[in-house]
Amino acid sequence: MNDGANEPPVVDLSPLLTPASIAIVGASTDPNKIGAKPLKFLRKYGYGGAIHPVNPRGGVVDGLTCHTSVAEIDGPVDCAIVVTTAAHVLPALRDCAAKGVRAAVVISAGFAETGPQGMAAQAEMREIAAAGLRILGPNNQGTVNLGAATVVGFNPLLEALDGFRSGTIGLVSQSSGVGFGLMGLGLERGMGFAHLLTTGNEADLTFADCGLALLEREEVQVVAGAIEGIRDPATLRRLARRSHELGKPVVILKGATSKAGMRAAASHTGALAGHGAVFSAFCRQEGLIEADSVDALLDYAQAFASPRSRKTGTRTVAITGTGGTAVLMADALEREQFELPAPGAASIEKLRGTLPDIASLANPIDMTTANLGNRALFTDTARIVGAEGSYDTLIAVVGPAVAQSGLDYARQIVASADYLPSTVVTWTAPDGPGQDLLRANGILVIPSPQRLAAAMSGLRRFNEYGARRSAAAAALPDASAERRRKARDFLSQVATRQLAEHQARTLCAIWDLPFPRQTLAHDIDTAEAAAREIGFPVALKLQSAQIGHKTEIGGVVLNLKDADSVRAAAERLLNTAGLADDVKIDGVLVQEMVIGAGEVIVGGVKDPELGMAIMAGPGGTLAEVMQDVSFRLAPFDAREAECLCNETRLAALVHGVRGRPAWDAPALYRTIERIALMASELEDLVDEIDFNPLIVRRDGEGVVIVDALVVKI
Amino acid sequence: MNDGANEPPVVDLSPLLTPASIAIVGASTDPNKIGAKPLKFLRKYGYGGAIHPVNPRGGVVDGLTCHTSVAEIDGPVDCAIVVTTAAHVLPALRDCAAKGVRAAVVISAGFAETGPQGMAAQAEMREIAAAGLRILGPNNQGTVNLGAATVVGFNPLLEALDGFRSGTIGLVSQSSGVGFGLMGLGLERGMGFAHLLTTGNEADLTFADCGLALLEREEVQVVAGAIEGIRDPATLRRLARRSHELGKPVVILKGATSKAGMRAAASHTGALAGHGAVFSAFCRQEGLIEADSVDALLDYAQAFASPRSRKTGTRTVAITGTGGTAVLMADALEREQFELPAPGAASIEKLRGTLPDIASLANPIDMTTANLGNRALFTDTARIVGAEGSYDTLIAVVGPAVAQSGLDYARQIVASADYLPSTVVTWTAPDGPGQDLLRANGILVIPSPQRLAAAMSGLRRFNEYGARRSAAAAALPDASAERRRKARDFLSQVATRQLAEHQARTLCAIWDLPFPRQTLAHDIDTAEAAAREIGFPVALKLQSAQIGHKTEIGGVVLNLKDADSVRAAAERLLNTAGLADDVKIDGVLVQEMVIGAGEVIVGGVKDPELGMAIMAGPGGTLAEVMQDVSFRLAPFDAREAECLCNETRLAALVHGVRGRPAWDAPALYRTIERIALMASELEDLVDEIDFNPLIVRRDGEGVVIVDALVVKI
Repeated sequence: MNDGANEPPVVDLSPLLTPASIAIVGASTDPNKIGAKPLKFLRKYGYGGAIHPVNPRGGVVDGLTCHTSVAEIDGPVDCAIVVTTAAHVLPALRDCAAKGVRAAVVISAGFAETGPQGMAAQAEMREIAAAGLRILGPNNQGTVNLGAATVVGFNPLLEALDGFRSGTIGLVSQSSGVGFGLMGLGLERGMGFAHLLTTGNEADLTFADCGLALLEREEVQVVAGAIEGIRDPATLRRLARRSHELGKPVVILKGATSKAGMRAAASHTGALAGHGAVFSAFCRQEGLIEADSVDALLDYAQAFASPRSRKTGTRTVAITGTGGTAVLMADALEREQFELPAPGAASIEKLRGTLPDIASLANPIDMTTANLGNRALFTDTARIVGAEGSYDTLIAVVGPAVAQSGLDYARQIVASADYLPSTVVTWTAPDGPGQDLLRANGILVIPSPQRLAAAMSGLRRFNEYGARRSAAAAALPDASAERRRKARDFLSQVATRQLAEHQARTLCAIWDLPFPRQTLAHDIDTAEAAAREIGFPVALKLQSAQIGHKTEIGGVVLNLKDADSVRAAAERLLNTAGLADDVKIDGVLVQEMVIGAGEVIVGGVKDPELGMAIMAGPGGTLAEVMQDVSFRLAPFDAREAECLCNETRLAALVHGVRGRPAWDAPALYRTIERIALMASELEDLVDEIDFNPLIVRRDGEGVVIVDALVVKI
Repeated sequence: MNDGANEPPVVDLSPLLTPASIAIVGASTDPNKIGAKPLKFLRKYGYGGAIHPVNPRGGVVDGLTCHTSVAEIDGPVDCAIVVTTAAHVLPALRDCAAKGVRAAVVISAGFAETGPQGMAAQAEMREIAAAGLRILGPNNQGTVNLGAATVVGFNPLLEALDGFRSGTIGLVSQSSGVGFGLMGLGLERGMGFAHLLTTGNEADLTFADCGLALLEREEVQVVAGAIEGIRDPATLRRLARRSHELGKPVVILKGATSKAGMRAAASHTGALAGHGAVFSAFCRQEGLIEADSVDALLDYAQAFASPRSRKTGTRTVAITGTGGTAVLMADALEREQFELPAPGAASIEKLRGTLPDIASLANPIDMTTANLGNRALFTDTARIVGAEGSYDTLIAVVGPAVAQSGLDYARQIVASADYLPSTVVTWTAPDGPGQDLLRANGILVIPSPQRLAAAMSGLRRFNEYGARRSAAAAALPDASAERRRKARDFLSQVATRQLAEHQARTLCAIWDLPFPRQTLAHDIDTAEAAAREIGFPVALKLQSAQIGHKTEIGGVVLNLKDADSVRAAAERLLNTAGLADDVKIDGVLVQEMVIGAGEVIVGGVKDPELGMAIMAGPGGTLAEVMQDVSFRLAPFDAREAECLCNETRLAALVHGVRGRPAWDAPALYRTIERIALMASELEDLVDEIDFNPLIVRRDGEGVVIVDALVVKI
């Protein structure tokens, strides 16, 4: 959509990550106060630049004389750490801006999270930022550059650590607790991070800003992040695009999926969204890799940061000396839809000459404990299967049975890592020097077979998205101001919030959506005449803006084959008993009876963070019971619509099931593309759209929408 | 089913776990050989009993003089560790039996896993065992009693460890690599095990034998196991029953779910089984807790071994000082269907007086960083919500923000652990003394919110199963030899493997299964007469033992409303073109047209390990597309049938969806009970049973089977 031509420049994080000089505004002499921590950690980890404590009362902090204001500092200041009480933050930031400070980390809390007054203060902060001082926070705990051991902020975890192992993962988290927790758990696992940025309330710099800026940095090969509220979906899209342009994966754990929720909604679509389903769809659509747990986030990040494991694909070969663990690995691989094809006959012949008689030559290949006595057996085996050229991933399954010769085993795996495009290891035993050696050589090691398979699935997902993306760019029709104007004019004349079906149809006609032939009748005679005109059989549908689900109140009568049936049904509908007195009947729709190959539900619902989301799945009255839908953010093209449908059981249904005819799937995908275009163009005019069912006819015969629900804003 | 009256006594594991004397048969003087390891580890970990090395060549092993045979040993021998080559194992075991040795651990490999010869040797081993010498193995690595630091066997992991932390978890694994790997990973996590038993090829003692024996031991509170092949489902059922009688959970990770597979099958049911679905159903049915990964197995075991976390239920209250992690916790709890109800008004009032203004009093309750300065804030908060009496589980969500005062925080949590029935902790930061203190006090600590929620779900599952079990015993009809005899006689007269529908119906009549009125017609006139007799509308169905899925070849014609339609349809079916010449047509079934409220598929398929499994789910032609089924092992009662149905979308469908009528659900469950009874009584006569659809009529109107497929063995 956005090709990047008019995008703002990527934020320069260097004043935060590699500042030459730092002011600490609110520096405290009391070592138990948060104001004392930034200086403590700068010194503890060996920061080499200039440090300027600032305190209006002056004094000496840990040997450094305090300036009474930022203005007083001699020379330039790259970064200010603000740890004052909330009331002093804005004046301090203004001082910083006046001084030409490039960036500020506002650790102080007491802003948007506390209510309207705090929100107003935070808005002022944003104005100061817009004038040039980039602000991280408020209500965050700063940044850590692990490569340069520079801590611009504080977190109690920093008390416990002695130093950092640095690496290529750039970590971003809105929540400081989550961010530092992830860093701590990752370091404990032997992972290496380049940077940690915590963004807090995001008055200025957002999660996506920071992720994007990290992605562009040479020392960062992977961005891993934890996000709660999405403040700028456009930058998040840009982050995803750059991720694939640069070949650097972005892994995200989304919080607040249980609370974000959709607003209470009258449609199916509303009831089916939620639980993070739209964010998950966003990730699939844009090529971000979503993690659903703390462990998965760390596993994926570790996988992507292991260069010799990066090219993981579907065709895997496992080599093991511990059969039981290999069985668990095979189970897990099957669950994640990896293949374990048997080696070819020629390879089997060579393996027979290499491995002991009791070895299993299927896949997984079980060397048995023979590998303990022969220190080249793994390498020989890997060379043989690698030479076959048909596998893309070598999986070494190691158990405690070889812990004694762990380093030898690890050396063999490292020596074999060039035989296949990708090598990964599951080592189901406590950590040891062998595992360290593998990690140091860029090979992914995860102790659990199931978590390894899941991480491999993340690697494959990234690679497949990249391949799909480079194969074909999205081909979206241009947005049309003309269509929008027509829709606005029409909607302004509709008095109710929920459109009657005939009104919905008029609206949809602007986007050329396919409907059956029909006439709105206000009396029995007109209904009969309309049915004769359309041709039998016909369906009759009660029309009222106040009735959402007509079927439930008996407001739909199908398959009327003659004039008498039409008259009887029209009479019953027009004089519908049992409805509340204040329900206004607009008439009955007389409609061509549409016999299709299958039914689909397509809806549009607004995600409060990401905008108009389109849902599709098997349709009809059972749509809500099936609960089998998936989402995409509008707009998108027909190919993306196909991906969307293939995430549901529509994948099987479109081919025709058990003798039923195949559907006109291309027409379905094209229609969903049109619906997505309509939904995106109506984003600020309409709250919900719901087509159920959309009837798909046989191959080549197109699709027809037989029931449409539109709810205005 | 089995009330335990005729069950064999539980195996006495004491010669394996607490032997007073041990013989090492095949003891080696070469420290690199496996034969040298048992003695090494007995000494390393401080075994205090008598050790007797045995080697036909005599000699001195590490200061001990070898006996040349077991017979030569003075005094009784509790346990023999056999580490000879395979060829010497049987003679050695015979010697042991003659000597009166009580148990043997056969570490040697080269038996059933190598082919027919090895299988025969293993069968002999079983005979020796039957005479009194209990055998663990062959092809295993023995046992570890962590409480007494007694290692009866070997594994290289034992080289790396200095000693053991013991605890209450009894660990059993068929695979030694997996077993020792789990022990190593668990010890690394701070878990405590009572024993590890590896069972290998299971010539005598099985996984279930060992699990059951561990369960009965006082020092064991939880049994955790990894199993591949199930050799004795009856003992596994007994293990499950004792688990709930004793209130000691059993957690199992099943391997080889991708390979066990069902035999190639003609029916829907066959295609829908596999991937461990039947084993999962078995666990749900019997009250075993299934883990789907190494991490989950350890998490569950840890959870069950934490006494102050054991009573976890659905109503939870979370208290945190780190909001971001609490958000992740809330998401994970919602996913696992826990509730986080807000505190009552009185509690809110008290909390307001206790917590700072910026605290969040919803659930999770966020104390903010105020807890850092006030060392009783957590306890005060927990006391208030505990006094409310409406929560069953307190969740402390701790982040790295309090790592500096981790011990203080942990002490507060320990002090609060009596306020609610259950207390659990997620502490998203590297391990530290605070976490050790919590574990030492019997409180579950898991570093990831998502894994904590999953472990809590395991706790709740065990507790709910226990409550359900004690509420009502299963009420199964007795198996009937008379029905079995009738069925055997009838089936012996059927020439083809797959029964024609009318034959299937005859068979089903033995169990009084409900079918529609019908007549088998061999010509057009008879078909018409039958239709007149039954009353219009009718359905016509082609009958041929060679045709499984009639719908696909147009062999079913529904809703024929008059004689002419019946004649036309009968003519077409009886002269069906397009079928292979050798397909024999038995006639057409003229059947009452059954209009129901909904359709269900019910099938029976043989699991190679667990026996006849019954499947149910939404039915009709879309059953295979829906892939929405669940399983139970036959026989079971109507209440269990209801549980089975409720694991699928039938849970919603039976209530009637969107204005459709409610189903006769009790009749459905009763019919499934009858089908399960039939399947279990036919277990050795029939391979597959498939009813699709079984039509459920409106509430009170019963159910009817309209299509039945039965395949003989």
